Amino acid sequence: MSERRELIVELGERSYPIYIGEGILHEAGELLAARGISKKSPMLIVTDESIAKLHLPLLEKVLQEAGFTAVTAIVPPGESSKSLKVFEELVTKALQAGLDRKSAIVALGGGVVGDLAGYVAASYMRGIKFVQIPTTILAHDSSVGGKVAVNHPLAKNIIGAFHQPELVLYDLSTLQTLPPREVAAGLAEVVKHGLIWDEAFVAWCDENAERLVQLDSDALGYALYKGCSVKAAVVSKDERENDLRAILNLGHTIGHALEAVAGYGELLHGEAISIGMVGSARIGVRLGAPEEIYAVTKRVLSRVGLPVRLPEHLDTDAIMEAMMHDKKFQEGTMTFIVPTSIGQVEINSSVSKALVREIVEELKREA
Amino acid sequence: MSERRELIVELGERSYPIYIGEGILHEAGELLAARGISKKSPMLIVTDESIAKLHLPLLEKVLQEAGFTAVTAIVPPGESSKSLKVFEELVTKALQAGLDRKSAIVALGGGVVGDLAGYVAASYMRGIKFVQIPTTILAHDSSVGGKVAVNHPLAKNIIGAFHQPELVLYDLSTLQTLPPREVAAGLAEVVKHGLIWDEAFVAWCDENAERLVQLDSDALGYALYKGCSVKAAVVSKDERENDLRAILNLGHTIGHALEAVAGYGELLHGEAISIGMVGSARIGVRLGAPEEIYAVTKRVLSRVGLPVRLPEHLDTDAIMEAMMHDKKFQEGTMTFIVPTSIGQVEINSSVSKALVREIVEELKREA
Ligand SMILES: NC(=O)c1ccc[n+]([C@@H]2O[C@H](COP(=O)([O-])OP(=O)(O)OC[C@H]3O[C@@H](n4cnc5c(N)ncnc54)[C@H](O)[C@@H]3O)[C@@H](O)[C@H]2O)c1
Ligand SMILES: NC(=O)c1ccc[n+]([C@@H]2O[C@H](COP(=O)([O-])OP(=O)(O)OC[C@H]3O[C@@H](n4cnc5c(N)ncnc54)[C@H](O)[C@@H]3O)[C@@H](O)[C@H]2O)c1
Ligand SMILES: [Zn+2]
Ligand SMILES: [Zn+2]
Repeated sequence: MSERRELIVELGERSYPIYIGEGILHEAGELLAARGISKKSPMLIVTDESIAKLHLPLLEKVLQEAGFTAVTAIVPPGESSKSLKVFEELVTKALQAGLDRKSAIVALGGGVVGDLAGYVAASYMRGIKFVQIPTTILAHDSSVGGKVAVNHPLAKNIIGAFHQPELVLYDLSTLQTLPPREVAAGLAEVVKHGLIWDEAFVAWCDENAERLVQLDSDALGYALYKGCSVKAAVVSKDERENDLRAILNLGHTIGHALEAVAGYGELLHGEAISIGMVGSARIGVRLGAPEEIYAVTKRVLSRVGLPVRLPEHLDTDAIMEAMMHDKKFQEGTMTFIVPTSIGQVEINSSVSKALVREIVEELKREA
Repeated sequence: MSERRELIVELGERSYPIYIGEGILHEAGELLAARGISKKSPMLIVTDESIAKLHLPLLEKVLQEAGFTAVTAIVPPGESSKSLKVFEELVTKALQAGLDRKSAIVALGGGVVGDLAGYVAASYMRGIKFVQIPTTILAHDSSVGGKVAVNHPLAKNIIGAFHQPELVLYDLSTLQTLPPREVAAGLAEVVKHGLIWDEAFVAWCDENAERLVQLDSDALGYALYKGCSVKAAVVSKDERENDLRAILNLGHTIGHALEAVAGYGELLHGEAISIGMVGSARIGVRLGAPEEIYAVTKRVLSRVGLPVRLPEHLDTDAIMEAMMHDKKFQEGTMTFIVPTSIGQVEINSSVSKALVREIVEELKREA
């Protein structure tokens, strides 16, 4: 069995622990009880159909044996479940199951289930307890920071809240069933956390890319621990996304535009931001940062199995247009997160549109 | 012109001012700007059809003259607008109008508009600024405390958040158009704030009942100032409703049950809690508090035009049943807010059901 890791996300009275390890789901009962999750009030487990088949029975069994009363809601897999409609169905379910102010909502799944269930927890009776059991690599990102949300037909993540979990249980065993494309997509955010904060961790990812792709538990445990730690460090300094937290958007301005233009589905979020991070590295270099940023960024992302080239059929005008709609352009200013060295970025509010356009074109010719 | 009053709701970095006065709407431009509401980002005014006819033109004119850009959403009047459906329509409107993270939502109306618009402000982009312009007396209650919510078909106020406004503008002139029944219903919460906290204010209400019913601006301004002050004092000590805040529920356990059993509409909320407060006074006396609590409670409420007798056709069993479903019965314990003297209450968790039942019967025979 691989090493067990624990991390505290420091947020004053809203601080919470993240437990990372193989088979940790077996200890869910004790860990939830230790964090004050009530056995007297019913809890609601939220998961999706694919995950339910693989990992729900164990969770239900463990919680029942520990004396918790849990009802389960299973939503269809995929982004479309992050809707107000499914949100309302979950509230109905919570009411019917008699959840009260001491109840908890438990999210067993990836970012979709986490965001959705988290918004239910944030809103039900104006906020009840929330437990995250992430089952994707990408969800290491959503398990830190307390951002929860559903989508509106006109905009992603536009309806939401900040609602911190009581605890996060990361069982590495559950990740073994992840499809390879989801593995790589999740690793994009892991690499991102290195690129914005920690040069040594970028080097580690570079060397251990193969082990990560093969889901080696030791490597994965370390990578998730580091990824969560970086995000926690950023979020602790800026819980409500006033300034610093913006650096977490490295690669996301271009990435979101690609997702929008490609139509959600063609590119996974992690794939889109992989291309976006290569673009950001290119911008950094053009603005005077060392050349190696670009080479290293591209190499690490390729090694974990991510695309680094922008699909040629995506129209440059449409991409530029989509970027102008991105909410990061507050009141018309154009802001980019730009690398200045490996493991360091700056928030640059004066990146010219002409340069961004050139970079988008260059990304289509990426070798 | 009557006296101008100002009050600060003390909530650390979330503290905000309430301005109370005749014609204060004319100063909305300066007051909003002084509190940092952006003129660069569009704002959304939410109001209902009845209020729109009476008071919207002035607000729109004042804000426009001050250089704000505002779009308006007008919802149907009444509790049914506090739904997820209308919530979603407002989010759509906000998106279409281009509201960004620096935008504000302005609620012009009673508690319905305040709760609804406040939940939109709490959720849109995970929380934007919120301004309350209450136009009912009852809304003095909802303008302090930051509770915002919509209803679910199975439960009132079950989907919501805590989201404090940036400021509250209480223009006494807008209250002049209130129907008499709404005036009395609003005064129920004013009297409640006296009964839980301030004996002298109860005496003042007793003496000034006539002036309040006639909407005398000076009396009204003072009463709203006092009502808001009491609520602010309670909320400042217990922002997230952990313990003390429960005293604000004086009369509400019986009141909510009456609303539910009568069918929403027969009894206004204020009318139901008026009867509930008489019931609580009776319980207090039965538990040993001075007799006069009952006499004074009943007299003040009658004087402001509120019912104190429980409609006989409402079934006692149904009322008892409805109380058992009230969310204040956490994990089965039966809790009542019980007066101990005029201006003072206690949270009593061991009121027997038999006693409550007797009191419900007595309330039907109230002279
Ligand atoms: N809240 C935040 O801070 C934050 C941060 C990043 C991303 N997100 C959100 O996260 C979402 C994406 O998350 P995601 O990539 O985890 O998506 P996801 O939850 O849709 O999971 C991806 C797919 O993998 C399947 N799956 C999940 N776990 C599995 C497992 N262990 N074995 C086999 N299959 C499994 C799911 O059924 C799904 O089909 C987006 O909605 C995004 O907005 C939120
Ligand atoms: N958030 C809180 O802390 C809190 C506290 C108490 C009540 N509430 C909520 O408040 C709501 C009740 O508030 P309310 O009684 O103000 O109801 P309301 O907003 O429905 O207003 C009552 C009626 O008066 C009309 N009206 C409003 N202002 C008027 C004016 N100036 N002139 C003429 N007509 C006017 C409205 O159109 C409506 O028909 C409930 O939904 C309740 O849950 C919330
Ligand atoms: Zn991302
Ligand atoms: Zn009330």
